[in-house]
Amino acid sequence: MAEDVRGYDKSHSERHTMQALVLRSGSLVVDEIAEPVPMAGQVLGRVLACGICGSDLHAAKHLDQLATQGLGNPSPKRASLDATRDVVMGHEFCVEILDLGPGGSAVGASGQALKPGDRVCSLPVSMASGVVHTLGYSNDLSGGFAERMVLDAALCLTVSADLPTELAALTEPLSVGSHAVAKAGLEANAVPLVIGCGPVGLAVIIALKANRIGPIIAADYSPRRRQLAESLGADIVIDPASDSPYDTWARACWPEGVDRTDPFLVLQGIVAKPNVIFECVGVPGMIKAVAKGAQKGTRIVVVGVCMEPDVFEPFAAINKELEFQFVLGYTGDEFASTLQSLVDQRLPGVDLLVTETVDLASTPQAFADLSNPEEHVKILVAP
Amino acid sequence: MAEDVRGYDKSHSERHTMQALVLRSGSLVVDEIAEPVPMAGQVLGRVLACGICGSDLHAAKHLDQLATQGLGNPSPKRASLDATRDVVMGHEFCVEILDLGPGGSAVGASGQALKPGDRVCSLPVSMASGVVHTLGYSNDLSGGFAERMVLDAALCLTVSADLPTELAALTEPLSVGSHAVAKAGLEANAVPLVIGCGPVGLAVIIALKANRIGPIIAADYSPRRRQLAESLGADIVIDPASDSPYDTWARACWPEGVDRTDPFLVLQGIVAKPNVIFECVGVPGMIKAVAKGAQKGTRIVVVGVCMEPDVFEPFAAINKELEFQFVLGYTGDEFASTLQSLVDQRLPGVDLLVTETVDLASTPQAFADLSNPEEHVKILVAP
Repeated sequence: MAEDVRGYDKSHSERHTMQALVLRSGSLVVDEIAEPVPMAGQVLGRVLACGICGSDLHAAKHLDQLATQGLGNPSPKRASLDATRDVVMGHEFCVEILDLGPGGSAVGASGQALKPGDRVCSLPVSMASGVVHTLGYSNDLSGGFAERMVLDAALCLTVSADLPTELAALTEPLSVGSHAVAKAGLEANAVPLVIGCGPVGLAVIIALKANRIGPIIAADYSPRRRQLAESLGADIVIDPASDSPYDTWARACWPEGVDRTDPFLVLQGIVAKPNVIFECVGVPGMIKAVAKGAQKGTRIVVVGVCMEPDVFEPFAAINKELEFQFVLGYTGDEFASTLQSLVDQRLPGVDLLVTETVDLASTPQAFADLSNPEEHVKILVAP
Repeated sequence: MAEDVRGYDKSHSERHTMQALVLRSGSLVVDEIAEPVPMAGQVLGRVLACGICGSDLHAAKHLDQLATQGLGNPSPKRASLDATRDVVMGHEFCVEILDLGPGGSAVGASGQALKPGDRVCSLPVSMASGVVHTLGYSNDLSGGFAERMVLDAALCLTVSADLPTELAALTEPLSVGSHAVAKAGLEANAVPLVIGCGPVGLAVIIALKANRIGPIIAADYSPRRRQLAESLGADIVIDPASDSPYDTWARACWPEGVDRTDPFLVLQGIVAKPNVIFECVGVPGMIKAVAKGAQKGTRIVVVGVCMEPDVFEPFAAINKELEFQFVLGYTGDEFASTLQSLVDQRLPGVDLLVTETVDLASTPQAFADLSNPEEHVKILVAP
């Protein structure tokens, strides 16, 4: 019996299929596809919840851009993405282990023995084949918008019993914010400005708050998102339609009454407090706009993912000696520590991020719904 | 008698004129203009030598771009530049003090009493009027391409007797390199790639060498400039027409035989040595090219001044988590310590940078000659 459960072979796998949301020729379709088969050192999991990311919305329309620009570092040992072939997206998952690959044992990221029934999260990556696959953007391995998926045991973190699945599934997007804040290398008295309060901007605010950095200035055109930003710890929220976020932020960086235009201060590039902007919008024109609004010497962390070519004015950046840190993802340590922060309830209010949970059949509609910032922040798929 | 020398008044100044190279409606013309009059806290100097900078070449053709984009931080206490009015350029100067402003005494940057006959260098800035003027790009104050100029005493550094004027005049461009290297924040084992070996790139190489950072990889299409780069301390020089500077540099960053495409290294963004690129070309397209050639996590210091809008692909930068540090100028401390390094002969080979010294009448031709990288590096004007 144990033989039967563990001993996947080709004929066995051919007998099993599963439901999945397939991105096929630019359309999202729910289809029956072959269930993946774990190799040695992998586990087969049942997807409990998987969040829809802004990148998924983009990829659903422009998978070719992702394929052309290449996910991750170009490398002969990295799987390429073919936009003409099927992709099952989903990289913000929490999974229940159903089965272990051949060999009968699997060791997780912290050395723990994995067993069926464990809930796990993992970096959305698989390396077990010797080639790096990005789970959720792979032609060969299914992401989390499917009933089941295969994970590398070595990357699996066990989710402790008292953490709800919905929150565990936020580990990935919250890690993005945590990583961005770590890359900003901020002093405690830094004054951050967060431009854009979608899931990425809110994750940045959560990470700033957890690191006790502030006052946090946050800007978004959406009233709903501004309200969420405030609930999650932003100290001042700005509607860019009526006020300049950059002016409000500059005032917060300087003591009342100091003349920021004093020739000596300007000449020496002296600022009262270290200041940073987190660009969390990711559309063409943002780099230019942020450079225009920045102060002298501002560090700009670009977290918003802009997939299209963009125009900016180098001289504006030169003139203020700006620093742009582009970020993507997070390290394994950051991912693990974000999960632990969720377990320890050190990220108050995160449950506000999940605005709906849908099944696979409703997922195409959820993709459409996410275009309205008043409606939703994060929608989870529970296949 | 002393009264007469020091006591400038309007009628006195009206009697004095001087020769200057005037940028007027897009042309460089040698003309007779009013000699400037020092205020209290200023000195009148005779220009001994003043280098022609790449920015001057650009401004001679596109002064409107400088005026539109604004030099320095926008500020009500900063003089604006009007491209329709005359400008006397020149910001890399060494001056002999002729006279002191009203009051009869002038204290220099290090507290020294200034007196006629002293040779001085200074930051190309004047603040004595309470408004910041950028010397060399001002409608109101003459730069160094004139027989005489006025300097703020508080910014004057005395040049010691044993330092030749030609080298003292290099303080400004060498400070640019020193500042760029300081802003790179490099560890001693960092591997720098210098793209472009004009005066800016060579100044970066000199500063890297002085800081014992290397091996230094340097690239330029010009054989003359590659040879100079080597003489000044570059360890490997590359002709981009025949070899990829980025490949050579990447190999220098990794021990022989290590597979840089190893999935674990790629996933974690691990690099063998901290690596940095100095972009010293400053034309449209360079940011995109450098992002393409960079490794994961490369810090890119943008020293080349690109005055035109530029197109780049944010996703390429995001994907590799690149960091762009735009730099401009230097601090007062960096300027002073560069001058001291010249005095202490800690920058071997710098005399190679000066390829010609011309008078004011020959300066328009010198501007034209500088377009050929095989001919010249730095031309000094001795009015």
